[in-house]
Amino acid sequence: MRTIDTFKIGDSDSFTKTVTEADVVLFAGVTGDLNPAHTDEESAKKSMFGKRIAHGMLSAGFISAVLGMKIPGPGSIYLSQELKFVKPVFIGDTVTATATVSEINLEKNRLKLDTTVTNQNGDVVVTGSALIMPPKAE
Amino acid sequence: MRTIDTFKIGDSDSFTKTVTEADVVLFAGVTGDLNPAHTDEESAKKSMFGKRIAHGMLSAGFISAVLGMKIPGPGSIYLSQELKFVKPVFIGDTVTATATVSEINLEKNRLKLDTTVTNQNGDVVVTGSALIMPPKAE
Amino acid sequence: MRTIDTFKIGDSDSFTKTVTEADVVLFAGVTGDLNPAHTDEESAKKSMFGKRIAHGMLSAGFISAVLGMKIPGPGSIYLSQELKFVKPVFIGDTVTATATVSEINLEKNRLKLDTTVTNQNGDVVVTGSALIMPPKAE
Amino acid sequence: MRTIDTFKIGDSDSFTKTVTEADVVLFAGVTGDLNPAHTDEESAKKSMFGKRIAHGMLSAGFISAVLGMKIPGPGSIYLSQELKFVKPVFIGDTVTATATVSEINLEKNRLKLDTTVTNQNGDVVVTGSALIMPPKAE
Repeated sequence: MRTIDTFKIGDSDSFTKTVTEADVVLFAGVTGDLNPAHTDEESAKKSMFGKRIAHGMLSAGFISAVLGMKIPGPGSIYLSQELKFVKPVFIGDTVTATATVSEINLEKNRLKLDTTVTNQNGDVVVTGSALIMPPKAE
Repeated sequence: MRTIDTFKIGDSDSFTKTVTEADVVLFAGVTGDLNPAHTDEESAKKSMFGKRIAHGMLSAGFISAVLGMKIPGPGSIYLSQELKFVKPVFIGDTVTATATVSEINLEKNRLKLDTTVTNQNGDVVVTGSALIMPPKAE
Repeated sequence: MRTIDTFKIGDSDSFTKTVTEADVVLFAGVTGDLNPAHTDEESAKKSMFGKRIAHGMLSAGFISAVLGMKIPGPGSIYLSQELKFVKPVFIGDTVTATATVSEINLEKNRLKLDTTVTNQNGDVVVTGSALIMPPKAE
Repeated sequence: MRTIDTFKIGDSDSFTKTVTEADVVLFAGVTGDLNPAHTDEESAKKSMFGKRIAHGMLSAGFISAVLGMKIPGPGSIYLSQELKFVKPVFIGDTVTATATVSEINLEKNRLKLDTTVTNQNGDVVVTGSALIMPPKAE
């Protein structure tokens, strides 16, 4: 478990995953978000995106994975998250969530991180930032 | 599908779900977020919460469910979300995500909604707000 | 439940299943094995296999299915397993796990079985052997 | 991706996860191993273990997670695995899979690792070893 004094501005890590149909089905099931945009191909065909899209919060989940497992990693407390859903993620896309330290507040033990999700074409699909309390030194 | 002119400030709806261990297991699997806080009971026992907690983004998923399925509902485009994780959600908790219209911008076709998640004791666990583009009149 | 005296060398049974993308997603989730070879199509494209492969241990799970459900079947204790991963299994492949009795030790109540997994083309993908303690006569 | 020259004997890493009922249900579903020992509580009550046990191959999956994600990590090819199932894992146990480099064959580009799974009481539940081909230097 890394304490705040071990980070510097610009430290970054990422997590990549292909978004499968099964991911979208399971995400819909656990969250109860069976919005037709994600689960009804016929209705999605007539939408502005032309096919089913993944839940924006699934991409947010990949951000959570980076923050909780890589940077700042286990032992951190997730305080807040801002998310802008910039472009849709489609089933079959491979997305990369990246977190980069942008502010370090030693006094309050708070890290701010830029959080971005991109797809396999390099398009940014989600932007935002997270506020995290790293584990305290014992 | 409801267009923006059908909403007024204070319109509200909610979605309630018990957060099961299976939900947490599946959410971890699809997002890749196997942070020990969610998946390792022995390590969680020693944490400040004393046991495994659900992913904050799972609660955010319930917000997405309300927005996408109830208010403003199908056909909407999810533009952005702010989230503050105020208290932990434990396995077995029953949480209610509520969205309430707080601003209506007819010109830009934008709805702002307060989004709150509470647990079975009435404790607020997540606060925040969402910006949504409802479906356009055809 | 079959006791050891009911088996003879060469007794064999098998189990066949198509390996779906959902299987790989769920297997990754429950085991925590989100190795990019299984979950990141873009990275897998650049690997020696050219696309995502299923977890070797998923094929081993099919062996466990044959042993636990068919031969020697319920009531057995699984003592050990050797596995050689000979060829990759791809999403969409239909694989058959076969177990064949190769040694019978009545005194110690131990069965040895050859365990092989093949794909729809007849290619061997996993070889190995299992040591099992069948249920005792009551 | 780490090449073989970056490892030394004794290098070790591990992965810990609580084995939930949902894990066992999903593992049973994807592998087809619905052996009553794992899925039939009434029958399991009468067995020598007194309750349902997790699949041995689920523990093997945690070994795969360590090997594929941590040591030697992504880019490796899994050649073979030996497994001894020493003690049962019960639903609710928290198990730790550990892999430790025991042999390095630079000429053949092969790593041998001791692979052990222990439970929350420190009991060894699975022992064995893995043979891995790390990614080649480019």
